Amino acid sequence: MVKRYLSVMPLDDALSLLSREFPCIPSIVQVPLERAVGRITNGPIFARYSVPEIHLAAMDGIAVRSMDTKGASEQHPITLPKAARVNTGNVVPAEYDAVIMIEDVWEADGNYSIRKAAAPWQHVRPAGEDLAESEMVMPSAHRIRAHEIGALATYGITHPEVIAVRVGLVPTGSELVLAGTRPAPGQVVESNTVMAKAMLDEAGATCTRYPFVEDKPEEIRNAIAMACKENDIVIVSAGSSAGTKDYTADVIAELGEVLVHGVAIKPGKPVIIGRIDKKPVIGLPGYPLSALTVIREIVLPFLQNYGLFVTERERIRAQITTAVAKDIGSDEFVLCTIGKVGNRWVISPQSKGAGVQMSGVRANAYIQVPRASEGFDAGEEVDVRLMVPASEAANALLITGSHDPVIDYLADLIRPQGITLLSTHAGSMGGILALKKDDCHAAPTHLLAEDGSYNTAYLEKYLKGTDLDLVCIAERQQGIVSRDGLAFKDLAGHQFINRQRGSGTRMLLDYELKRAGIDPATISGYEREVTTHIAVALAVKSGEADAGMCVYSAAKALSLQFVPVAQERYELAFRKEHADDPRLSALITAIRSPAFKNILARLGGYETAETGRLRPGRKE
Amino acid sequence: MVKRYLSVMPLDDALSLLSREFPCIPSIVQVPLERAVGRITNGPIFARYSVPEIHLAAMDGIAVRSMDTKGASEQHPITLPKAARVNTGNVVPAEYDAVIMIEDVWEADGNYSIRKAAAPWQHVRPAGEDLAESEMVMPSAHRIRAHEIGALATYGITHPEVIAVRVGLVPTGSELVLAGTRPAPGQVVESNTVMAKAMLDEAGATCTRYPFVEDKPEEIRNAIAMACKENDIVIVSAGSSAGTKDYTADVIAELGEVLVHGVAIKPGKPVIIGRIDKKPVIGLPGYPLSALTVIREIVLPFLQNYGLFVTERERIRAQITTAVAKDIGSDEFVLCTIGKVGNRWVISPQSKGAGVQMSGVRANAYIQVPRASEGFDAGEEVDVRLMVPASEAANALLITGSHDPVIDYLADLIRPQGITLLSTHAGSMGGILALKKDDCHAAPTHLLAEDGSYNTAYLEKYLKGTDLDLVCIAERQQGIVSRDGLAFKDLAGHQFINRQRGSGTRMLLDYELKRAGIDPATISGYEREVTTHIAVALAVKSGEADAGMCVYSAAKALSLQFVPVAQERYELAFRKEHADDPRLSALITAIRSPAFKNILARLGGYETAETGRLRPGRKE
Repeated sequence: MVKRYLSVMPLDDALSLLSREFPCIPSIVQVPLERAVGRITNGPIFARYSVPEIHLAAMDGIAVRSMDTKGASEQHPITLPKAARVNTGNVVPAEYDAVIMIEDVWEADGNYSIRKAAAPWQHVRPAGEDLAESEMVMPSAHRIRAHEIGALATYGITHPEVIAVRVGLVPTGSELVLAGTRPAPGQVVESNTVMAKAMLDEAGATCTRYPFVEDKPEEIRNAIAMACKENDIVIVSAGSSAGTKDYTADVIAELGEVLVHGVAIKPGKPVIIGRIDKKPVIGLPGYPLSALTVIREIVLPFLQNYGLFVTERERIRAQITTAVAKDIGSDEFVLCTIGKVGNRWVISPQSKGAGVQMSGVRANAYIQVPRASEGFDAGEEVDVRLMVPASEAANALLITGSHDPVIDYLADLIRPQGITLLSTHAGSMGGILALKKDDCHAAPTHLLAEDGSYNTAYLEKYLKGTDLDLVCIAERQQGIVSRDGLAFKDLAGHQFINRQRGSGTRMLLDYELKRAGIDPATISGYEREVTTHIAVALAVKSGEADAGMCVYSAAKALSLQFVPVAQERYELAFRKEHADDPRLSALITAIRSPAFKNILARLGGYETAETGRLRPGRKE
Repeated sequence: MVKRYLSVMPLDDALSLLSREFPCIPSIVQVPLERAVGRITNGPIFARYSVPEIHLAAMDGIAVRSMDTKGASEQHPITLPKAARVNTGNVVPAEYDAVIMIEDVWEADGNYSIRKAAAPWQHVRPAGEDLAESEMVMPSAHRIRAHEIGALATYGITHPEVIAVRVGLVPTGSELVLAGTRPAPGQVVESNTVMAKAMLDEAGATCTRYPFVEDKPEEIRNAIAMACKENDIVIVSAGSSAGTKDYTADVIAELGEVLVHGVAIKPGKPVIIGRIDKKPVIGLPGYPLSALTVIREIVLPFLQNYGLFVTERERIRAQITTAVAKDIGSDEFVLCTIGKVGNRWVISPQSKGAGVQMSGVRANAYIQVPRASEGFDAGEEVDVRLMVPASEAANALLITGSHDPVIDYLADLIRPQGITLLSTHAGSMGGILALKKDDCHAAPTHLLAEDGSYNTAYLEKYLKGTDLDLVCIAERQQGIVSRDGLAFKDLAGHQFINRQRGSGTRMLLDYELKRAGIDPATISGYEREVTTHIAVALAVKSGEADAGMCVYSAAKALSLQFVPVAQERYELAFRKEHADDPRLSALITAIRSPAFKNILARLGGYETAETGRLRPGRKE
């Protein structure tokens, strides 16, 4: 019942094997100029004819015989016996050998007179000046640039011969539905070949996505066999693991051979490298970030062997904010957010979950933790590969702390200014610690002290002596979310869903429980923790729990009931030294903007100074 | 008859005027995911539903009730009363709250037993783990990356709303023919809007090329009016200058207003900026490199005002090899070739001819000589903007000296190794001077000394004390090219076309004339100089001259007669210190390769050591 991987091969060995086992000869196609930008020439390209083919006027003026102009001067103008009006680009008639600019010509009664002699061939664009028939325009293996498209047109080339790597993408899985269809429970939108096509097309490959194939060996066999006929490389999405319905490896072995099953990378280990009819067949793991990693670290480098250019983003060094632990033996790739705090590049790892595609959307960089390493300590300097241009990464605004949906709206407000707000969800205490280490530009926090005050007590305690500022993002309502209007006093006897320890919401709950004299042990589900407001609301919506504590906007987003418990100050703390940072200024301006107040009003459950109801303490 | 420019405005002022006079509001379109990479979101994008919507197994194994597993150990295995086999991604049925990996399960008679307790919710992917319904996937003004296409599909977004800038391209000119048609004398392949479309599409615009419009004001008027209706920006190609058929400015003035006619840039001065129905209408000059400059320096920066991202290549500092002179008052843009000689970035200006599109193909960088500057001296350090990735520029092989068509073939042979051979045509003496200044990797040269020897005497004289090496590229035949088989002795009485002073071919001619006792003054056309072998052959082919001196391959390429005069050593000189440079080694390997010998044999007129006929001196 349980299938094991045939072998787990180190990444470098897998890449060498691919280079060694396959000749990597691309296909050759002719493409129209409109689609030639970025393509790689297959052979040298020659001019079909000379440009220009005949002498042309290089100026607006008159074509003359230079010998007729000898001796002309201010004192002795010459009226020319023969001359012809020409505009730039007109043919210089055969009897003439020079052009005089129109500004230097006097016309009267259809005759031209001049006051300066013309040198032979002046202002004449000689035949072949640009390029002559038979000359080479560009060599083989040249990536055609946008501005060269005009030159190719000029030299008579309308369908340059370029290399093509045809990649067939075969999505397998009975659970798959097409993008645009809302998946029923247990169904999944097929996104891996959608992503693979976008990434490989961008690298210059020519991808074909085949129809979905159900988890039936004979259907998978037919699909792979057909894809092998029609392509240079075949990629089979999913079915590469060791589940009961993972047939990909068996089918490849039947049709050809499996060279590798399992590469020591994380995510992405259950990758298959096989060969059918001398062609490489790659089995992609099913988790989206595993698939992403295999495409980026194995397929893209492999495509270069065929002659495609894969543009790599810049690599830089940065200080890592939190430790990354791993076992020895695998290369591990971690998606991260990176930015510049002061003059220091600072990088934070994102969730490692291979199913969390949002990590790929949020990330602007990634790190590779090498096979022999046990990971990185917080504060270590590490090698980083950027996923955006360096100039864009340098404009990132790093926010670490308690996440609220309004942070996304603030990101949206400042994005058009070229600032990317990157939020690391670390909870309020996590934000305060990041602030202490100067690892972020600002920390959103809502920490309730014993005396009922917000944030200041904690900042005093953990950041004593650091010059700080606090800007109130909003006062917001926390309350009980439920399907049927449960209140705080109704919690006992119902299934609860909790927030994680260290989060402001958890601290608020514990504070309120203590005030009300309720023992947490009496609340069923108190130990079940999730990490966001919306996750609490989702658990309630799905019926997994009856109640939880979250902000009003999360309850409203999922159309659930909400009974307020307390109003808290959700504030942005930052070091005064960064107050003039243009990115932070932009954020503060956005917090104070009417546009943001409108958003708060629309979302509901928030109060601001402008509403006249913002008070220093907390609301009972 | 002569129209003058209304005004000539500095570049910076023209750019400010564009920002000031136009609101730059983009259009909004929905694009399918297949075409969404690189597009800019118009507004925030939200998840249509939660992912996953229900708890899923995160591992292949069995779903269990965690309370049933309490107390299980190696000593006390527990056989579970209830459990369900699940693969990764399957729904965890509502009655279960944990998954145990299949590797930790023992199955017998359809029952599962375990030896370790399961923690609640272990290996369960909770609903909304990736993203919850209503959460923001990406903000406004976000450039969609290839790997994000899969995430968008997963979150139910199949047609993201993105910004579009619709640019209408109107080619005008009665002389235009479509790419693919061989232009008759005086006709021109329309390449400016072809190039503009490629460049602007790459920057994210949505271009429409309109049919050719003849040089008739009423037709131009109709075409521009229609393009204005259908686009956000209109670009009219050519007719922007001051020739008798340049109607563009008049038509724009009739339909709206001309804001600028003439911007102080070179090339590109006769640009028009106008406004019709509140929309910008830009008149592009006709010369291809003028058009290129206007698109790159005016249109692309302007597109950024609409919210498009225009990726700029890196800027670096480099030492310029030759002086660039210019008049004060214009920003001048010069296409260049750049590479690294040793650890030094070295840059050489290319031809300034605005009609020489090949300069754009050959260039991998350009410089901007500022308005207030009179130019640069040779050896000055200048600001450079790259036209290729910096890594590619760093791999350029710089060759300066006498150009022969075989250099292009050598470039073709080494290009697949990632090496870009960039040849600056400076003549043999120019190459020797570049070698002296260490401004190139190698110099192809064929300089005949009084004693009949090649190259060594000149290197001795000009590079005394420098450790040099010489590799013979080929011995090649120089001879008289003609339409009807003229020989050297027939020159008198026929129209001649000469090569420029300082070129090896000119020196060879002068040497032979002297030996034969012929006075150059008796040769008609001796003073008419062109700079390449192929230009000599072209002048003969077109009938402009009856004879000239060039290499055999140039005569053969244009199917002309060739009568040999001498055989000369065409050699590659380089400093020994660069001999181990991998780029130079690759070139030398290519020179010695059988592939290159085959090319020489095919072209004809070359001899090599391998043919057994290479001798140290010259052939009589």
